[in-house]
Amino acid sequence: MSQRVDLRFNDRPVRVPLGVTLFDAASWNGIAIDSTCGGHGTCKKCRIRFRADPPVPTSLDIRAYTIAEIRDGWRLACRTAATTDADIEVPPLTTRPKAATVGVGRQVILRPAVRKRFLELAEPSLADQATDLERVLGAIDDLAVKADLAVLRTLGRTLRDADFKVTAVVSDDTLIAVEPGDTTHRVYGLAFDLGTTTVVATLLDLTTGTPVAVASMLNKQQPFGADVIARISATMLDPGAAGKLRQLAAETLAELAAAVCEEGGVRQEEVYEVALAGNATMVHLVLGFDPEAVGVAPFIMVARLLPEVRASDLGVPAHPQARAVVFPAFGAYVGGDITAGLLASGMDRDPRVRLFIDIGTNCEIVLGGRDWLTATAAPAGPAFEGASIRCGMRAADGAIEAVTIGEDGDLKLTVIGDTEPTGLCGSGLVDAVATLADAGLLDASGRFAEAGEARAVAPALAARLTTIGKERVFVLSVDPGDPAASVYLSQRDVRELQFGKAAIATGWRILLEDAGLTAEDVRQVLLAGSFGSYLSAKSAIRIGLVPDIGPRRIIAAGNVAGEGAKMALLSIRDRAAALALLEEVTYVELSDRPDFNDRFIEQLGF
Amino acid sequence: MSQRVDLRFNDRPVRVPLGVTLFDAASWNGIAIDSTCGGHGTCKKCRIRFRADPPVPTSLDIRAYTIAEIRDGWRLACRTAATTDADIEVPPLTTRPKAATVGVGRQVILRPAVRKRFLELAEPSLADQATDLERVLGAIDDLAVKADLAVLRTLGRTLRDADFKVTAVVSDDTLIAVEPGDTTHRVYGLAFDLGTTTVVATLLDLTTGTPVAVASMLNKQQPFGADVIARISATMLDPGAAGKLRQLAAETLAELAAAVCEEGGVRQEEVYEVALAGNATMVHLVLGFDPEAVGVAPFIMVARLLPEVRASDLGVPAHPQARAVVFPAFGAYVGGDITAGLLASGMDRDPRVRLFIDIGTNCEIVLGGRDWLTATAAPAGPAFEGASIRCGMRAADGAIEAVTIGEDGDLKLTVIGDTEPTGLCGSGLVDAVATLADAGLLDASGRFAEAGEARAVAPALAARLTTIGKERVFVLSVDPGDPAASVYLSQRDVRELQFGKAAIATGWRILLEDAGLTAEDVRQVLLAGSFGSYLSAKSAIRIGLVPDIGPRRIIAAGNVAGEGAKMALLSIRDRAAALALLEEVTYVELSDRPDFNDRFIEQLGF
Repeated sequence: MSQRVDLRFNDRPVRVPLGVTLFDAASWNGIAIDSTCGGHGTCKKCRIRFRADPPVPTSLDIRAYTIAEIRDGWRLACRTAATTDADIEVPPLTTRPKAATVGVGRQVILRPAVRKRFLELAEPSLADQATDLERVLGAIDDLAVKADLAVLRTLGRTLRDADFKVTAVVSDDTLIAVEPGDTTHRVYGLAFDLGTTTVVATLLDLTTGTPVAVASMLNKQQPFGADVIARISATMLDPGAAGKLRQLAAETLAELAAAVCEEGGVRQEEVYEVALAGNATMVHLVLGFDPEAVGVAPFIMVARLLPEVRASDLGVPAHPQARAVVFPAFGAYVGGDITAGLLASGMDRDPRVRLFIDIGTNCEIVLGGRDWLTATAAPAGPAFEGASIRCGMRAADGAIEAVTIGEDGDLKLTVIGDTEPTGLCGSGLVDAVATLADAGLLDASGRFAEAGEARAVAPALAARLTTIGKERVFVLSVDPGDPAASVYLSQRDVRELQFGKAAIATGWRILLEDAGLTAEDVRQVLLAGSFGSYLSAKSAIRIGLVPDIGPRRIIAAGNVAGEGAKMALLSIRDRAAALALLEEVTYVELSDRPDFNDRFIEQLGF
Repeated sequence: MSQRVDLRFNDRPVRVPLGVTLFDAASWNGIAIDSTCGGHGTCKKCRIRFRADPPVPTSLDIRAYTIAEIRDGWRLACRTAATTDADIEVPPLTTRPKAATVGVGRQVILRPAVRKRFLELAEPSLADQATDLERVLGAIDDLAVKADLAVLRTLGRTLRDADFKVTAVVSDDTLIAVEPGDTTHRVYGLAFDLGTTTVVATLLDLTTGTPVAVASMLNKQQPFGADVIARISATMLDPGAAGKLRQLAAETLAELAAAVCEEGGVRQEEVYEVALAGNATMVHLVLGFDPEAVGVAPFIMVARLLPEVRASDLGVPAHPQARAVVFPAFGAYVGGDITAGLLASGMDRDPRVRLFIDIGTNCEIVLGGRDWLTATAAPAGPAFEGASIRCGMRAADGAIEAVTIGEDGDLKLTVIGDTEPTGLCGSGLVDAVATLADAGLLDASGRFAEAGEARAVAPALAARLTTIGKERVFVLSVDPGDPAASVYLSQRDVRELQFGKAAIATGWRILLEDAGLTAEDVRQVLLAGSFGSYLSAKSAIRIGLVPDIGPRRIIAAGNVAGEGAKMALLSIRDRAAALALLEEVTYVELSDRPDFNDRFIEQLGF
């Protein structure tokens, strides 16, 4: 899973995990490909063309295309895996699917909360003195039962200027706008994944379910701290910080909204609904709730289920009456991003016992399936984000993201951006530790081997084991021009990783034991988020981060929080399913468990 | 009914129709008098003291008071009629009635939409991680099911600063505020009668149902025209006028709100609900709806039933989450003020056939009782407001408000403010025409008698019949110093009044005929509004303005629109009854009746 390929879809570069289908790769990156079957190889509509070096055609390709087309590079996106870098052409959409594929292969039947209907109303007369509102609601009595006050402020003028030919815009059961003429073909929604670090926005065409544009940027709250505890602390130290954090979150969302609307050629007023998934702290901050009690024991949120929220309450530029769906949290540390992730990965529908893990400073873990679900949060610390690691860095250009041992017995490093390595990101850290443990250079307790032992078990690597200052380190790469800029793994780094993985492993082990299960009962592990996409399944198993059920069952689920937000916009059924999850998931508070510390120590070793 | 008396309650001067009880006189003017029976003479709690010249005690007074108290001027307010000017002392309230008397003797059991409850909540723990909102809603699960988003923005801080001892404020089924400590004794509401001319505000203590303060002022929209058509026309001529009118209405309401809160010692944030009764045009303007279609055939409102309105939508300073109850209209010209008036006068509960008439430029007429109600609007024109009358004026100081013939056969004038007469208000106009018709100086067609005939039938008055310019006039009063400032009634004035009364009489006659009834079937006529309070029942009958069922059955109902607004604040049951009226009342559009003009001409004579 740590391997990635670089693709270009209509000249837009994306980087995706090796082996995913091109349909999923495009869809996850907001690039719409025709499909009515949703990637099952039956509709033969997901046509794409390799501009160079097309892969061997599948049997379906041969049935779907002429020989000339096959030679020209045409393939079906849903049956073609991303195995090498490729330059791909995606034709414009020709059909409007009634269903859309989002999340982890979830087929969503389009039934958005926002609907439009074009009305040609009878003009009033002395014999028909129904009010303007009664006239409109009477024509859409299967859709709407009430209206926003703001609609009434322009209704009289709009109806008469448009000769009573108007489009009603309904959100759930409320008339939120009446527009002159027929605007039924323009209905958009914005899905946000409001992460502590990164925020992603997807502009969706709600009439087709297709993503129109996607953009991401760092959360502008970053200067107040890298993780949620730092940001909560800031609000406790400075009475003005909460307001500033709210403002910065709103600015982040607004900038992304403007970017995707610009890219998609969509006016702000055509965005009629917003969905947002984020952890409890992010949601508290963006809504202007006091986050302090979330940050200290007993970890209390202001609210889980939220009252009606408007896009304007989040600072998102959209239609003035646009509502916002904010995913509810299970607990202070299993937030709405996880609710969205569970929805997108179908945790509530799959009968198998699966383990859903979202690794970050705080690691959320959910165990179960269709019949039961339990969730907990484990304090994994910053190691997986490279933050407490000597040479740690974010997964950006220059970061070592994968470490293996080559045929020559020496290290083989994969560096993001194919540049000289400048640091170690989370997936590289896990790989490095797993590799050294495999090589015998780290013992089961996590201690570096003595020099003599190292030379005996791994002669090609032993020289890399040295001392910097008073600390033993393993040198991953040496910058010939500047030895001080070498990238290395220190004994303390290993300890940091041990703490993190022990917290996570203790979390899922407690969930398993509470359910009367063992690791062998888990059929699949879903790793959520971008970190999960780049983590080597083999290494994760090696260090005990995930149950040892074979690397093929460790699945990178991608940005499931954002996918869940998209699903909420596309389907009120799935939105309701997310709310139902709140009742279905049992939240386990680890800090309340007297056995936590003993279990934690048991899990420190490799 | 045209006679009035001047009272002082605790040094506050009020002017009320002759004969009303002092309890009603005080109550209608916002002066609270103890009572639990609601004016039925059974509780003996409505104690007041005449500071001078107390009336003869009733048998109830003798049972309620000691001889010394009787001598000292103590009487029961509910059994003492206002028959002369009086200076009255009202003791402070000693009881909190569970019921309040409002409207036309309506007993309202207190059940406001706004309720407070003091909560002493358990503090959260790791074993009880309910969110702040769940904690509060769980403690008031019989009251509230949801919360305003704004509540959540301060909830965390409020709970912790107040050690989880807080007061929940609930409006209908929504938590609108959580306040530190116990504030359950401070719950206020504001009732507005938003008239085209005059706006009245009453501040109510919702825990007792008692009015705390009342204030009135002219509607600041006056510069845009005296009646609703003038104001609607203004919005059609000037695109900016609607905004200005909205602003002026809001300023009027805000100024009154500030005045009554100041007088009552109530902070703006302690006003948790607002009720507003007004005609359809006033409501359209204050809510920012386009009124144009209300003003021209086929007379279409934007909406009758309104979605949720906040006090802030009306520009009323109150608690930021305060809701506003805006009375729904039956039609463009039978507005929410009439709905409120019907509620306050119990038209929907009384089994008798009654006629409810609100006389103004537009006259609203409702016929019926508990079992059925029909309503219409008649274009009465401005005569009753003195506007199209040569010497016409508003009912203000200097206006002749009553005209009778003294024992000497000459005119006897009652002038508001006991000053020299400077004009003629509506009630004086009706009196003058009725008196002259009685005296034979006006024939049945409304023409002034010839000079010779006048001398024959009314020698003491004949000299007053003269000519000014080319017009025949009847001089009501001569200013000795300035004959040009004389107050007179012209032939054209009589015609104006004839048009007005014919429109009204045609209205109620059509309603009666549609119901298969005649004037004799009407058991009572309720005259709504201040004009109705000052109109002489005898004169109204004489000119055919109301059915001839005897003056004692012509009742001045007072400011029933304002009373209805108060009822809506005090009782959700009565509020629901007002909404139910919308379904119960059949609206008859007169401009749609082919027989209207013929009927109208029939009604022109006296």
